[in-house]
Amino acid sequence: MYTEKGHIEQQRQGKDYIDPPPAPLLDVEELKQWSFYRALIAEFIATFLFLYIGVGTVVGYKGIYNNLCDGVGYLGVAWAFGGMIFVLVYCTAGISGIVYTPMKTSIFHWRVSLVRAVAYMVAQCLGAMLGVWIVMSLTHSHYHQADGAVNLVQPGYSKGTALGAEIVGTFVLVYIVFAATDPKRMARDSHVPVLAPLPIGFAVFVVHLALIPITGTGINPARSLGAAVVKNTKETWDDHLDYDLIGEQWIFWVGPFVGALAAAVYHKYILRSGAIKALGSIRSNPTN
Amino acid sequence: MYTEKGHIEQQRQGKDYIDPPPAPLLDVEELKQWSFYRALIAEFIATFLFLYIGVGTVVGYKGIYNNLCDGVGYLGVAWAFGGMIFVLVYCTAGISGIVYTPMKTSIFHWRVSLVRAVAYMVAQCLGAMLGVWIVMSLTHSHYHQADGAVNLVQPGYSKGTALGAEIVGTFVLVYIVFAATDPKRMARDSHVPVLAPLPIGFAVFVVHLALIPITGTGINPARSLGAAVVKNTKETWDDHLDYDLIGEQWIFWVGPFVGALAAAVYHKYILRSGAIKALGSIRSNPTN
Amino acid sequence: MYTEKGHIEQQRQGKDYIDPPPAPLLDVEELKQWSFYRALIAEFIATFLFLYIGVGTVVGYKGIYNNLCDGVGYLGVAWAFGGMIFVLVYCTAGISGIVYTPMKTSIFHWRVSLVRAVAYMVAQCLGAMLGVWIVMSLTHSHYHQADGAVNLVQPGYSKGTALGAEIVGTFVLVYIVFAATDPKRMARDSHVPVLAPLPIGFAVFVVHLALIPITGTGINPARSLGAAVVKNTKETWDDHLDYDLIGEQWIFWVGPFVGALAAAVYHKYILRSGAIKALGSIRSNPTN
Amino acid sequence: MYTEKGHIEQQRQGKDYIDPPPAPLLDVEELKQWSFYRALIAEFIATFLFLYIGVGTVVGYKGIYNNLCDGVGYLGVAWAFGGMIFVLVYCTAGISGIVYTPMKTSIFHWRVSLVRAVAYMVAQCLGAMLGVWIVMSLTHSHYHQADGAVNLVQPGYSKGTALGAEIVGTFVLVYIVFAATDPKRMARDSHVPVLAPLPIGFAVFVVHLALIPITGTGINPARSLGAAVVKNTKETWDDHLDYDLIGEQWIFWVGPFVGALAAAVYHKYILRSGAIKALGSIRSNPTN
Repeated sequence: MYTEKGHIEQQRQGKDYIDPPPAPLLDVEELKQWSFYRALIAEFIATFLFLYIGVGTVVGYKGIYNNLCDGVGYLGVAWAFGGMIFVLVYCTAGISGIVYTPMKTSIFHWRVSLVRAVAYMVAQCLGAMLGVWIVMSLTHSHYHQADGAVNLVQPGYSKGTALGAEIVGTFVLVYIVFAATDPKRMARDSHVPVLAPLPIGFAVFVVHLALIPITGTGINPARSLGAAVVKNTKETWDDHLDYDLIGEQWIFWVGPFVGALAAAVYHKYILRSGAIKALGSIRSNPTN
Repeated sequence: MYTEKGHIEQQRQGKDYIDPPPAPLLDVEELKQWSFYRALIAEFIATFLFLYIGVGTVVGYKGIYNNLCDGVGYLGVAWAFGGMIFVLVYCTAGISGIVYTPMKTSIFHWRVSLVRAVAYMVAQCLGAMLGVWIVMSLTHSHYHQADGAVNLVQPGYSKGTALGAEIVGTFVLVYIVFAATDPKRMARDSHVPVLAPLPIGFAVFVVHLALIPITGTGINPARSLGAAVVKNTKETWDDHLDYDLIGEQWIFWVGPFVGALAAAVYHKYILRSGAIKALGSIRSNPTN
Repeated sequence: MYTEKGHIEQQRQGKDYIDPPPAPLLDVEELKQWSFYRALIAEFIATFLFLYIGVGTVVGYKGIYNNLCDGVGYLGVAWAFGGMIFVLVYCTAGISGIVYTPMKTSIFHWRVSLVRAVAYMVAQCLGAMLGVWIVMSLTHSHYHQADGAVNLVQPGYSKGTALGAEIVGTFVLVYIVFAATDPKRMARDSHVPVLAPLPIGFAVFVVHLALIPITGTGINPARSLGAAVVKNTKETWDDHLDYDLIGEQWIFWVGPFVGALAAAVYHKYILRSGAIKALGSIRSNPTN
Repeated sequence: MYTEKGHIEQQRQGKDYIDPPPAPLLDVEELKQWSFYRALIAEFIATFLFLYIGVGTVVGYKGIYNNLCDGVGYLGVAWAFGGMIFVLVYCTAGISGIVYTPMKTSIFHWRVSLVRAVAYMVAQCLGAMLGVWIVMSLTHSHYHQADGAVNLVQPGYSKGTALGAEIVGTFVLVYIVFAATDPKRMARDSHVPVLAPLPIGFAVFVVHLALIPITGTGINPARSLGAAVVKNTKETWDDHLDYDLIGEQWIFWVGPFVGALAAAVYHKYILRSGAIKALGSIRSNPTN
């Protein structure tokens, strides 16, 4: 059985870091706690703000100008998404511990119970929808001209290319999230916890730079779903449902899932495996 | 009665953080202190520099080129405002504790006395006017071509849309200011106080990206008032007062006020409520 | 007489920070130390790299394209100068303690001896000239098309406007340098020394955004002198000395000097005066 | 013989920092350790991700638009390369200690054994090739239109100019890497290790701003080799091998090598020489 004391005991026996055991699948106790519902609200609000600012930036300039260059450009769009992630990770991290993307939630799910992971995902998707919905309501005609900022396979690219791009893009992001939240690194290097939100935000920024011309950059199913659902609800009312949009949504769930899984496997089985022994050998080499 | 010693005593009794009581409405003692007037001067100078650099950037390029794209673009304008906030929060935070926007002052007013809050607001508005005034004086004809960088409801948007955008934009900013200055988070996470000025600056930056096409981005009544007063004073001299400008100014006071209030309520009644108990439950989950 | 021990003694007697006395005007001892010459070399190399990257960015794109927008734009130019300052302050700060602008050197001169301040200034100006010279040698024809990236009063602005802009711009920068290196703040707030190079770099960045359309942004006499000397040497050889360029150089010495002096006075007589007492009164207000 | 104990002993004898001895040329022991292979994998993956994002950004927009300005511009390209370096240094530094450029590896080679340095270089070059290869596979026709993002001497510049630019550019980067990882500075200034990845990333960013119009910015032989090999393999299949490309590749090995060597000499023989004594003299000057 896992106990705080046993944990410390193990560390005294020469092993400098022991991972805690995974959280149970179902923890009834947590459903009774206010902190559980508070975390859901925090995830919901954070995803809502993320989509509101990000999609609002895309929609705002595309509506007014013929090309984005007269607005803030794709560079500005990448900054809006990446900057918000930096800010939100900084603000929300202490409260929910997960921060608002379904993929990250599913990957980290061994750190929280299954119930909590599912509840987080639902909160994130609802928050994303609300964010896009408010942008649509505020900027009605501009929203249409910008095609609702949905994630789509762009002209000139195949679905396979889009899937590949989403996989590698999510790998970059999740790889960095793992590195930034690795308890062993946090314990050893003072800069790891201090800077953490900044490289995570920069990762989202640079992945947007690379992926905007291919898919508009998903790497976050809640963002893709939110934009698509609001767009299609609108289209349905106007009687011309966008079947392409629906037909491509799987890319923005499968791509992020595979990319995040690959990053998790890379982190767990390559970077962390034998890590305790390796740390010992690095320490004996005093220049490292 | 609140005493430092009692505070520590309470913490020893198992409660890990106790909020200090709100400041009194009127604290005559502080009017006799140099630190009070020094803080006013700091607020005045900081708001002056903020408006000088921000409005100067807008005016500089619009005057020379047909569109901003040939200058630094809207992206550069967003960086000018966001970058200055980062820099000024870094520099001024220790002196006045509030930092130069009336809305933040009113929201935080339970941390300072009412007299201090009102005095800060006046200092901020005067500083903002001076900043815009100097830009106008230095760049006379360019200032006109750029319409004085006033906040206005842009063509194609309704007043309701502009109000909604200002509310959500201010919510993002004030939510982040609360998260960055939360004493409980500062005590628990080393990165919170170290990075604090950076996410606050980034929040201003990304909100500018999203709101420039709608209102030119107010989220700061001192900034809006300063630009409008200088513009209208100039116009009055030229005998064609801009009534639209005057008629829309309420948006840039009501919007930020509602947004900031919503963020304060969210922070106080959702994120912080039951926070001590919640912190306990998180700690018993050792991976968080 | 000042002694380390006496310093500590004073602090024990209830005063929490005592400024050390100013350095002597002439300290013969330091001329015998390698660290003195090492600091000069560091200033020289840092100013050289600063001008090489900054002027290289201006020249590179202006030469190829009709307008900067097809290159990195003025936004890119502002990043090049601001980014280099961030990087160089981070790297050089520990070695020379001053970092490569004559104005900052003269303002801080009570922290170093007069001999050292003058020697630093000479090293900085020489480094700046070398940096521009190498850019000119590498990019011969492009250098001409970009007018050598000299600081000039831009068309549509008067000399008075340019002087005013340089004064306020330098005030922003030096105000931030003082705030970032204030020993009292460093002792009290953990984030002040950790982040310091970043807001200094951002200050240079945002001041460039605001001042490029007016003067091309000097705020650093070494940068202005270096660009002007190399340009005029080149012109002299081509037999058409640029008299306007020479006639305006005083702006880029007087402006930064007045701005830096104002910032020093503001910091010393407003923000720091009675600071010890003020600190006490803030501490008794436990929320600050 | 070097021992941890002897090291500490020396420090007690009044010398505040003693460099550890260089690593042996061949350390058979390390070939048996998992940490050695893990570091190779980390270098490989990091270089792969760096090239994938960087080259992907160049290719993505050049393929769709006539000029980059309609995409993210050269400014966006500079951010993609610089941002990725920031993120990767943050993530990888603790694992391999070197981080993915052959030049940095060769310069630091006295900190690791020769075998390790060579193995790192090979891993980096293979990772770079894979990154470019995947971009080529995903964006077939766009890759061609963007000329494969290879480093070439741009029109209007001579090979000598390109070499000079690569030397100074690499000097900037490696000078900053030395300053950021200097164990003496890390021990003395708290901000040095905390911020370290950020100025390194910014250095790559600003060097890209300055060098893109001259060479496309190499300063990293693995990046140059990866792009060139994939391009030429493709061209060979299409039967028109690009001889210019091959003929210029030496610039992107010699330039970075000379620049890095110069930075190493500058750091070791100027900045660090007599550093212990110098540190003493600075300390006796209490304001520094």
